[in-house]
Amino acid sequence: MWNENKLTKLLDIKYPIIQAPMAGGPTTPELIAAVSNNGGLGSLGAGYLAPKKLREEIKKTKELTDKPISINLFVPEFPEDNIEQKEKIIELLKPYRKELGLTEAPEISSIQQSFDEQLNIILEEDIKILSFTFGVSSEDWIKRLKDEDVILIGTATTVDEAIELENKGADVVVAQGSESGGHRGTFKGKFEDSLIGTMALVPQVVDNVSIPVVAAGGIMDARGIVAALVLGASGVQMGSAFLTCKESGANDLHKNAILESKESDTVTTKVFSGKMARGIRNKFIDDFQKYENDVPPYPIQNTLTRELRQSAAKSNKPEYMSLWSGQGIRMSKTLSVKELMEELTKGVSNILSKSW
Amino acid sequence: MWNENKLTKLLDIKYPIIQAPMAGGPTTPELIAAVSNNGGLGSLGAGYLAPKKLREEIKKTKELTDKPISINLFVPEFPEDNIEQKEKIIELLKPYRKELGLTEAPEISSIQQSFDEQLNIILEEDIKILSFTFGVSSEDWIKRLKDEDVILIGTATTVDEAIELENKGADVVVAQGSESGGHRGTFKGKFEDSLIGTMALVPQVVDNVSIPVVAAGGIMDARGIVAALVLGASGVQMGSAFLTCKESGANDLHKNAILESKESDTVTTKVFSGKMARGIRNKFIDDFQKYENDVPPYPIQNTLTRELRQSAAKSNKPEYMSLWSGQGIRMSKTLSVKELMEELTKGVSNILSKSW
Repeated sequence: MWNENKLTKLLDIKYPIIQAPMAGGPTTPELIAAVSNNGGLGSLGAGYLAPKKLREEIKKTKELTDKPISINLFVPEFPEDNIEQKEKIIELLKPYRKELGLTEAPEISSIQQSFDEQLNIILEEDIKILSFTFGVSSEDWIKRLKDEDVILIGTATTVDEAIELENKGADVVVAQGSESGGHRGTFKGKFEDSLIGTMALVPQVVDNVSIPVVAAGGIMDARGIVAALVLGASGVQMGSAFLTCKESGANDLHKNAILESKESDTVTTKVFSGKMARGIRNKFIDDFQKYENDVPPYPIQNTLTRELRQSAAKSNKPEYMSLWSGQGIRMSKTLSVKELMEELTKGVSNILSKSW
Repeated sequence: MWNENKLTKLLDIKYPIIQAPMAGGPTTPELIAAVSNNGGLGSLGAGYLAPKKLREEIKKTKELTDKPISINLFVPEFPEDNIEQKEKIIELLKPYRKELGLTEAPEISSIQQSFDEQLNIILEEDIKILSFTFGVSSEDWIKRLKDEDVILIGTATTVDEAIELENKGADVVVAQGSESGGHRGTFKGKFEDSLIGTMALVPQVVDNVSIPVVAAGGIMDARGIVAALVLGASGVQMGSAFLTCKESGANDLHKNAILESKESDTVTTKVFSGKMARGIRNKFIDDFQKYENDVPPYPIQNTLTRELRQSAAKSNKPEYMSLWSGQGIRMSKTLSVKELMEELTKGVSNILSKSW
């Protein structure tokens, strides 16, 4: 069996395997609890969750596990609301909405959940591991969370971001390589300059911070886990591999798209949310690619396309859904979390016992 | 010490470390010979070499080593010559050329070396390891090379390319991850869809071919080597790490740019050669980025900018040079090949003897 390390000790978990906090549906209480019950760290992607819903999800998950779990929040952004830009996109979205039977203008209220309320619930519900995407919370909040012994995990896509996260008080940093599916955590500099492959990113982050580094991006099996450890990471964060698990709440159209695609089928795009994210190329991406630099910033664009994406899922139209996936896509499988965790941990033991 | 494997046996080398065949200057006889003499496989990047020069370089290298060496050739492409497109670029290049004192129109003859002549020299000079970039040679040539027991190495950026190379007779495939510096080997599909991170690409290629796989992209030290082996590769190909070695013929401005840059400073661009390649962002890339889709295809654009790039190097103007580099850039060092190989092989032994 592999050894304890500074990450597993800090998080009080058996294996240094974090299930990525995939916002928007996949991280059901069943998925999170199964990961934690099987020795990893289950994570709730709570970025889009209203406070009441967040509390419900935490309570449901805690009924299923007494092991540590983590919650992920999006650090909020408040871009200027450019009415003209928004009207243009609403116009462009009309034919797609019409095809789906959505004839009203898109709902654009509540573009941002209350971050303060979300954080208060984290404390009230006694969550001890909190991860952030898109930066970190305010100094005041970091102090308050640390006073309550909450372990803070930041997400970095470059070395400079990792250093900033450590300086601001993060206890762990996820180094998110360019292979990763879903939203890029980039919060300094340009998205385009922050697509660093996991193989290159991890050792460079490890060399420049002193907190434990978690490798993310393209890691789908035991080979990727051991490779990440060898590169100097203390653990891994895996998204796509858990997204296709039986307990995942991802739509079946999304799961099937991952199971049937190949590594060259994913692209990074801003067209769904206004922020760069990696997903499987489909008609919506192809149609809107030419407007990529005209879409309103996150979270405005995300709100404008939300109903369309949800309706597409209900109408069996994956061509209009955001099919987030990483590049390790050919290695995806349909397993229960228990089966996947067993495969991963046995696989790691096999690799570690091999003579090279 | 690490074990022999199918790659080291096939290539008759001690360590599964291939020095990448970087065309255009870095791969001096001294560099190649030092790599081979220290247990790796030195490689001559001969894509741009005229037949006479190719023969000279092989002879000089063989005077310095009796170990195996490999030669890399670019599979030629003959795009249509669009006069209008070419004239437009020549016009755009004028002010840059003028700044460098180049007042004539750029030399545009001999855009392609004779592939047949190059291959004949490979056979005449008894080279036993030949690697290809941008596809493979004709069936006839493959047969002839195989009849002469030449081992063929192909370069793939996707799983489908790797499968095609194996089917066409490659004995080894280099899986070139998106972290790699210099030209992308992509020869099927679009460049944009073929930027797969090494961590994701290697295991997917390994799962889909039966020939040995060599991992390339972002590998700069012993951590990267062991990680690649763990992912299922039989060896690694390292470019940037050897480019800054003392024996490398790369211009000092190029070496210094790598030594001083960070992982987010490289971009992929077609503006220098008409083919996508990764290098350090500079003024030329920034200025020409908006014409990226207007530049003539490789090798025409490469010819159009060659004199400008060479003149920039002589005039101490790195802002107009093609500063190829991979994303593992912060790990670059100035060492002799012997020192680097010792550091790599000792580092690998240390990692392999560690308890995880």
